[in-house]
Amino acid sequence: MSSLQQHDIPADIACCHDYERYAEQILPQPHWHYIAGGSGNESTLKANNIVFDKFGLQQTLLPDINQINTRVILNSERHENPILVAPIAYQQLAHQDGELATVQAANAQDISMVLSTLSSTSLEQVAQYQTSQPLWFQLYIQPDKEHTYDLIKRAEQAGYTSLVITLDAPINGLRNREQRHQFSLPEHIQAQNLQPYSQSVSNQAATGLSSQQVMLSRLLAQSPRWKDISDIIANTRLSVYLKGILTVSDAKKAKELGAAGIIVSNHGGRILDGVPTSIEMLPLIRQAVGHDIEILCDSGIRSGSDIFKALALGANSVLVGRPVIYGLATAGAMGVAHCLRLLKDELQLTMALTGCASISDITIDKIRLP
Amino acid sequence: MSSLQQHDIPADIACCHDYERYAEQILPQPHWHYIAGGSGNESTLKANNIVFDKFGLQQTLLPDINQINTRVILNSERHENPILVAPIAYQQLAHQDGELATVQAANAQDISMVLSTLSSTSLEQVAQYQTSQPLWFQLYIQPDKEHTYDLIKRAEQAGYTSLVITLDAPINGLRNREQRHQFSLPEHIQAQNLQPYSQSVSNQAATGLSSQQVMLSRLLAQSPRWKDISDIIANTRLSVYLKGILTVSDAKKAKELGAAGIIVSNHGGRILDGVPTSIEMLPLIRQAVGHDIEILCDSGIRSGSDIFKALALGANSVLVGRPVIYGLATAGAMGVAHCLRLLKDELQLTMALTGCASISDITIDKIRLP
Amino acid sequence: MSSLQQHDIPADIACCHDYERYAEQILPQPHWHYIAGGSGNESTLKANNIVFDKFGLQQTLLPDINQINTRVILNSERHENPILVAPIAYQQLAHQDGELATVQAANAQDISMVLSTLSSTSLEQVAQYQTSQPLWFQLYIQPDKEHTYDLIKRAEQAGYTSLVITLDAPINGLRNREQRHQFSLPEHIQAQNLQPYSQSVSNQAATGLSSQQVMLSRLLAQSPRWKDISDIIANTRLSVYLKGILTVSDAKKAKELGAAGIIVSNHGGRILDGVPTSIEMLPLIRQAVGHDIEILCDSGIRSGSDIFKALALGANSVLVGRPVIYGLATAGAMGVAHCLRLLKDELQLTMALTGCASISDITIDKIRLP
Amino acid sequence: MSSLQQHDIPADIACCHDYERYAEQILPQPHWHYIAGGSGNESTLKANNIVFDKFGLQQTLLPDINQINTRVILNSERHENPILVAPIAYQQLAHQDGELATVQAANAQDISMVLSTLSSTSLEQVAQYQTSQPLWFQLYIQPDKEHTYDLIKRAEQAGYTSLVITLDAPINGLRNREQRHQFSLPEHIQAQNLQPYSQSVSNQAATGLSSQQVMLSRLLAQSPRWKDISDIIANTRLSVYLKGILTVSDAKKAKELGAAGIIVSNHGGRILDGVPTSIEMLPLIRQAVGHDIEILCDSGIRSGSDIFKALALGANSVLVGRPVIYGLATAGAMGVAHCLRLLKDELQLTMALTGCASISDITIDKIRLP
Repeated sequence: MSSLQQHDIPADIACCHDYERYAEQILPQPHWHYIAGGSGNESTLKANNIVFDKFGLQQTLLPDINQINTRVILNSERHENPILVAPIAYQQLAHQDGELATVQAANAQDISMVLSTLSSTSLEQVAQYQTSQPLWFQLYIQPDKEHTYDLIKRAEQAGYTSLVITLDAPINGLRNREQRHQFSLPEHIQAQNLQPYSQSVSNQAATGLSSQQVMLSRLLAQSPRWKDISDIIANTRLSVYLKGILTVSDAKKAKELGAAGIIVSNHGGRILDGVPTSIEMLPLIRQAVGHDIEILCDSGIRSGSDIFKALALGANSVLVGRPVIYGLATAGAMGVAHCLRLLKDELQLTMALTGCASISDITIDKIRLP
Repeated sequence: MSSLQQHDIPADIACCHDYERYAEQILPQPHWHYIAGGSGNESTLKANNIVFDKFGLQQTLLPDINQINTRVILNSERHENPILVAPIAYQQLAHQDGELATVQAANAQDISMVLSTLSSTSLEQVAQYQTSQPLWFQLYIQPDKEHTYDLIKRAEQAGYTSLVITLDAPINGLRNREQRHQFSLPEHIQAQNLQPYSQSVSNQAATGLSSQQVMLSRLLAQSPRWKDISDIIANTRLSVYLKGILTVSDAKKAKELGAAGIIVSNHGGRILDGVPTSIEMLPLIRQAVGHDIEILCDSGIRSGSDIFKALALGANSVLVGRPVIYGLATAGAMGVAHCLRLLKDELQLTMALTGCASISDITIDKIRLP
Repeated sequence: MSSLQQHDIPADIACCHDYERYAEQILPQPHWHYIAGGSGNESTLKANNIVFDKFGLQQTLLPDINQINTRVILNSERHENPILVAPIAYQQLAHQDGELATVQAANAQDISMVLSTLSSTSLEQVAQYQTSQPLWFQLYIQPDKEHTYDLIKRAEQAGYTSLVITLDAPINGLRNREQRHQFSLPEHIQAQNLQPYSQSVSNQAATGLSSQQVMLSRLLAQSPRWKDISDIIANTRLSVYLKGILTVSDAKKAKELGAAGIIVSNHGGRILDGVPTSIEMLPLIRQAVGHDIEILCDSGIRSGSDIFKALALGANSVLVGRPVIYGLATAGAMGVAHCLRLLKDELQLTMALTGCASISDITIDKIRLP
Repeated sequence: MSSLQQHDIPADIACCHDYERYAEQILPQPHWHYIAGGSGNESTLKANNIVFDKFGLQQTLLPDINQINTRVILNSERHENPILVAPIAYQQLAHQDGELATVQAANAQDISMVLSTLSSTSLEQVAQYQTSQPLWFQLYIQPDKEHTYDLIKRAEQAGYTSLVITLDAPINGLRNREQRHQFSLPEHIQAQNLQPYSQSVSNQAATGLSSQQVMLSRLLAQSPRWKDISDIIANTRLSVYLKGILTVSDAKKAKELGAAGIIVSNHGGRILDGVPTSIEMLPLIRQAVGHDIEILCDSGIRSGSDIFKALALGANSVLVGRPVIYGLATAGAMGVAHCLRLLKDELQLTMALTGCASISDITIDKIRLP
């Protein structure tokens, strides 16, 4: 990581969540609120933050295990940890090293990154840093079909192995907090992947949609339909994960369409305030779709204990978003690596205390339901 | 709006509720507490503020809609939005432009206003500003029957199309907060509609009733009875809406009397502390009275999401009170217009994300019950 | 009230509960904590403060009533209001006029006072101020039987009409807050009724029992037994009310013993922390004992709305304690009178809005159960 | 106690929990957080602090008892109180007199101490202060079996009568708060009992395990198994209590292994955040194992009322940890003695008010379930 900024890890960081207070101090206020905020009254965001504590754990006394193995198979790939870095837009908002810091730190921790369509670094440039860990690409379907397929082709060519299509953000959420602080994207930070497609501003652009929804009808007309999803699945050699699913019926639909997996997510509470937490819906969805489709989960994961609970409730893996960005803001690549390391350590310790030698031992009887 | 004061909209207003903190700063303390306060311990007022968050939303992924239409028919009139400005007394307390600012701003947003009997501007003067949107008149029945019928006749002649009769305020509530701050109506603000009826102070006068209920018996004797309501329905060509209904039996009674509609309301928590929230009672009342009577709803609506939930639970439209007044206090007509605009935008966005192209698509399965 | 101190009522008192913040400022800290505090963690005290808000009210629209009558019969006496002043020890701690201020203010409001055994004014002196309203006497049974019967005889001779025997305080509660503030009774304030019985310090003395319960066994041995209660009932011509009952079985026992009534009470949360609120137990007790025994209720009554709820849940009357003392501390007799007046007014207004013309109309369907 | 430091008891200590705020002021911040903190988000720690208040009490009016007797038989020994001092590591962190102050103060209050393996004073030295009350020894099984048995032999020889084996801490919990404050054991404070076994650092050492769990596998391999427990039970003449049990199945296993008793405990919320409170599990465990095995309980006991509730829910005795340390930090041996005295007094007073003359009278009907 020689080209990256070097930082010291603050001495009082004990868990990855501790990076939040540093990020709040370091970031310009509008950036902070853009990243940390949610939509509406933030009731879903708040629920994300407290729902994990409603599930308890069941310790196993004197477990007869000598080693902890956290390996999982996702997308037929071996992942050393059931953790991915969630797709997060414009990471240069948090730190000038942006996505390049994140991908290198994640690789150093044997963790895969899901790169956002709205990356402030191009997908090709990020792919140069791929090492042992596979890279995944998150796709926002573009108003122009040609652009969408070009993005997919570029991801394929650059070596990305999975396509995570976000379904829940045809338009931006009402992010009141962000608007109150008048966040706007600085000039020098741009959606690099979309530069080739001039004039075509994505619906999902972080800024530009004020409360005046003058363009609502236009946006709706350009929004993807389910047919677009099945077309993509049929026309890419990448595995497709559908992200933003919160109901049993949408999960079943994803399975019927041939998705490799679904990502149970409420987009970190950033789209429609009032939707449920991922963790509430996860067991219902797992029960409905069975075990021949992968289920990933995000929104609210802040500790190894949270990861453990998500796995116990039916997830194959989790994605972690904001904590990574808070680590990035605080200490660049070092912060990201440390943040991920803390999550891994906590997961292993939780497994040790609950008597789980491997991920498949993490079953629902290891947690206490609310 | 040339005769109205011009104001700037504060840059950090992201939703209509954000006007509240401005209003609190701008208004004289007694006025603020008169407007914002409720009765007793304010337990109903507090419940109004939190009950909506207990209902979640259900997003629809990739909805196949191109346009959002918010039109509804109320009182056989076309309303562009399922929103009315609630009847609010003495709007000059909030801003010198008072009801004239509100009616013009509402009209500009294609929203109808319900003018209060206790308007600080006469109903005739307000009616001069009627444009495309119908005007409704809220009636407090007067101690002297002749005055009541004179008010109705004046409303008819001035072009109001509906009569909203308030049933829940035969006497003022125990507004402890208001009394603690020794609110009294300033000399220059008066119930203009009641000027012709000298000596006849309405029971509902905002002031004058201290805790010493020396006149309780007299007030009770002069209070309206159900017979007065049926007499009015029989003797006006205006459609009659009965406001303040919170029980199934009263809703049924309203229907039997031939009311055009009912307004489920706890009067913004200002009359009897301890009564339920509108939103709790709404589905029970809709189920009991069926669909051949209109149900409107107020008390606690602070966002487009709240409007959506009320509609999903059975309302044909909502009324919005305090937020409008907070917008008025902050930025006059501009504030009212902006406040209403934000509500409309939020409603449309919520409809888009839940896959509702028109108001009739907003059904109970779009929300998550507590 | 010519011999009493004259005070102004603070202008921002809107309900009797508003006196609390004045009392907190006016009283010496130890006195304040002695009066306001409860036992242990104050969980029962806190429950008293919030339990009433769990019960809602049901408004009656357009009630056909012309007058509100709050008269009740208690102990075969006509009481103009279903309110008594609860027995409270050492009222000179709150104000130099002490019990004399309270009794006169209560009489002026047509409300009866229950004088405490631990009054800082003798029962004979208080009785001189009896007017239209009957006076009741609260009895702490004394270690020496002779003293107990002497107290009863004195109460009879002085014209008291009822004897309220407190059952729940054989020893003081663990009033941690009071001890933290090192409350002790000032020299000049004494239990005047007990002066004749030298050497005989009541178990219930407000002070002197530190956490070191060196005398616990002695206290227990001297504590009253049920046999003492039945003996007193047999040997006094006063009606006997048993105070401190919180269970169905104790209520039934009281009825069997021939008590005129019971007082459902947790002693204002001052004895055993963790006991239930009166209002929770009230309907169960009423159901168990039927309607041929009077049930009074205290602990937590702070408004006319609270009184209404207690009556709806089965009480014939309530007793009000701390608010009276807060009124006394703030404005002497004027404060007490004003406090009681506010309660009466609130009760009447609540009755008007719920359509209750008389106390017997206050039935359980007028409230909303939690 | 002549060799101990003399301190004054602060005048505003009314209950043993009041020592907490003094300890927080007196102790160096890292020490304070090491002692007061829990693992993870401290959700179990917080639950410990509030769970007791969910259980209410049932007062008995006019109980016919003359004396309170708190004696219990534990381990065939007579204990004057159902209270032991919980095993707490490194008590010199709280006060220079450390374990010597605690044992003498406990003895003075007729209360037994359970000495920790990680005592900052050797078990032999502590045993010199044994008086009438039996001493118990808490055992952390050591990586080297020989050391474990040497510890046991030393405890036997020094006159300890019971062995409390801690099962729930094969590795340290994730004590984030402690790490945030960079606690580390001062040079001069050491695990004196382990000095003879050089190179053998216990897994349970309070420090040294940062979040980097580099040694997790090694630690797990060295952790005790159930077989080690049964071996110890077979090879010591001490009675064995198994500590850290929170499930019915582990309780049954302990009984099958021939343990004299179990200690229902979540280790004060210090090991695996998310495990249940002791008090929740206690009645289920008692019901499952019957009455021919002793059940002790700790984690969250802060008052005599808490002790009463634990006994009512099935415990034979409780252990008290942090309050003792807070007393020690505040006022040395005097503080410990006062703290224990307050607990005893509170228990007796609670028994008096609930009509319990002896510990066996404390049955489940004396409390109110949540």
